[in-house]
Amino acid sequence: MTVLTRPILEIDLNNLLDNYRTLQKIAGKAICAAVVKDDAYGLGAANVAPMLYKEAGCRHFFVAHAIEADRIVSQIPEATIFDLQGIGEDSLDIFKNHEQIIPVISSPQMLDFWKANRPDKRKPAIQVETGLNRLGFRESELAKMSDDERKDFCLVMSHLACGDEKDHFMNGHQLDNFKKLKNTYFPKLPASLSASDGVFLGKEFQQDLVRLGAAMYGINTAPYRPNQMKNVVRIQAPVLQIETLPQGDFVGYSATYRANTNRKIAIVSIGYGDGFPRSLSNVGKVFFKVDGKLSEARIIGRVSMDNIICDVTNVSKLNVGDMAFLADDFYTLDDMGRDAGTISYEIMSRVGKNTRYIRKILFKD
Amino acid sequence: MTVLTRPILEIDLNNLLDNYRTLQKIAGKAICAAVVKDDAYGLGAANVAPMLYKEAGCRHFFVAHAIEADRIVSQIPEATIFDLQGIGEDSLDIFKNHEQIIPVISSPQMLDFWKANRPDKRKPAIQVETGLNRLGFRESELAKMSDDERKDFCLVMSHLACGDEKDHFMNGHQLDNFKKLKNTYFPKLPASLSASDGVFLGKEFQQDLVRLGAAMYGINTAPYRPNQMKNVVRIQAPVLQIETLPQGDFVGYSATYRANTNRKIAIVSIGYGDGFPRSLSNVGKVFFKVDGKLSEARIIGRVSMDNIICDVTNVSKLNVGDMAFLADDFYTLDDMGRDAGTISYEIMSRVGKNTRYIRKILFKD
Repeated sequence: MTVLTRPILEIDLNNLLDNYRTLQKIAGKAICAAVVKDDAYGLGAANVAPMLYKEAGCRHFFVAHAIEADRIVSQIPEATIFDLQGIGEDSLDIFKNHEQIIPVISSPQMLDFWKANRPDKRKPAIQVETGLNRLGFRESELAKMSDDERKDFCLVMSHLACGDEKDHFMNGHQLDNFKKLKNTYFPKLPASLSASDGVFLGKEFQQDLVRLGAAMYGINTAPYRPNQMKNVVRIQAPVLQIETLPQGDFVGYSATYRANTNRKIAIVSIGYGDGFPRSLSNVGKVFFKVDGKLSEARIIGRVSMDNIICDVTNVSKLNVGDMAFLADDFYTLDDMGRDAGTISYEIMSRVGKNTRYIRKILFKD
Repeated sequence: MTVLTRPILEIDLNNLLDNYRTLQKIAGKAICAAVVKDDAYGLGAANVAPMLYKEAGCRHFFVAHAIEADRIVSQIPEATIFDLQGIGEDSLDIFKNHEQIIPVISSPQMLDFWKANRPDKRKPAIQVETGLNRLGFRESELAKMSDDERKDFCLVMSHLACGDEKDHFMNGHQLDNFKKLKNTYFPKLPASLSASDGVFLGKEFQQDLVRLGAAMYGINTAPYRPNQMKNVVRIQAPVLQIETLPQGDFVGYSATYRANTNRKIAIVSIGYGDGFPRSLSNVGKVFFKVDGKLSEARIIGRVSMDNIICDVTNVSKLNVGDMAFLADDFYTLDDMGRDAGTISYEIMSRVGKNTRYIRKILFKD
């Protein structure tokens, strides 16, 4: 038996590619851009972007910051990369060096900055506000722009607030706002309203270009029905030690768990220092495979930086060196997010950035 | 005015060094080891460890995984690095290559593995369980060891569960257990019981070696009194856009905030993709400096991956490009952790691993 000390992070690029292709079918004629911001939701933009570029012919990408585009642009030379946070002094050089990186301009001030500093004739994208009240031009600001200014863009976009709730009134409200703003101010411009969640809301929401992020990474962005996406992230961690916890004894920091009866506990080598959420203290669960059968075990006590402690009283035949399954196809980051009081997006973004994992990138094998 | 798009992460190594020296004074004659696991709590072990080695003469370090030792060992050649998770198949080569990396053995199984695979005569450390019920030999396991086995260690250690609560009964309980185990089984071995929190509990808890982590990084590990440590982490992020939020409008994902009256909002360029906790949605706060005066603003709506939205109705003279202060000497990660329903440790560990920050390492200038 191999006895490990480090946890394992498995990133399934085969499933990610399948998800992209499934979404492509759902999106019909819309261009399918890939959102690889936040280092591809923590999973590694340097792997994800070139894979989609080569295998799926993806030629449109979105990042949040120009520096994220800078890190992948040489690997996807014929792609257009949109930068959602736009342009500032800290990203000017990147835009100068790479004409295929396109800022998304979201405010009059940023437009002024762009006009004063644009390196060439490339046209930026414009974001318009339709209900999220985040980045984007408000209608009063669009109305003040000249016709020439309005023609100097390559794409008009907005973003849904409640796209993962099929019947939320905001969806229709934002769609109406978007169509009105587009038709009034940018009638001839390609349009993009939806990220992954909006893709499932139908043709009107898909417009000319959809921005595939969360769903591509396996997250269920249509939680009102079973996930159509395949799981991309799996996490395991080795059992370092198995002990009896005597009745009355406490477990972990601040002694938040006390044993009512003698328990069997397993100390597992993962913690919040690996991105595992501390909010799973005393509520999270892990799984073990014993004789091919799945057993669930509760996390007891506080999640600490490097370890969790699990009540394995009911897990028979468990040995030191066995692996605990933290996230897998049968218990996804969506499930973990729900149990942790957050969303899978946040956990995914955390986990992938940690360098203590034994990292396995699955692709075509 | 400089208009940025990226957030700024400032790591103040001057203050970190001062904290180490302050803790050294408190720790008296105990050796002050530096805990640089989890990439120095996310702040960069490759900076922190050599700095403490050169400037403070620190010669004892603790990591959680051998791979973390492997990454710094060449920069601190004469130091001893203890590996808290011990040894497994995945770290054997590292121990073979570097005799100054010392595993902490925490269970009979791991001791067997060590004996079967030890690369040389170096003596490991042994962890004994005194009340945390995490990694460590239980007394029944110690009793079964032979005298020769017990002599083949270089350090006996344990770890406090409630060291940050001065009057918690667990502290005395663990100290008694530790003294008993040490005196019975390892009477001549150097001993280490305390991390940062235990240092403040007095001489008995300090034993021969203390493991300085959290407090060195500025965290208040003695929260029953004002922090004696200097702040190490500062986070700023630029205001990308300022808008009026009309009465009745919603903000952010899932429309969790609705404006009762017209509000002024600022969209700030930081989000959970930068390690900023999503649990600060609708409860967190940020600060602005206007005319040298500090103004507080509430986060409204959900924290998203790349942005937060703040109610700046009461912040006068705010401009696009101004910086929001997320963490600073006046509102530390301890404060943020409290507001976010977690602890500063978890946030620190997250923040530092993100590569979108403009990173400023302050040292001697």
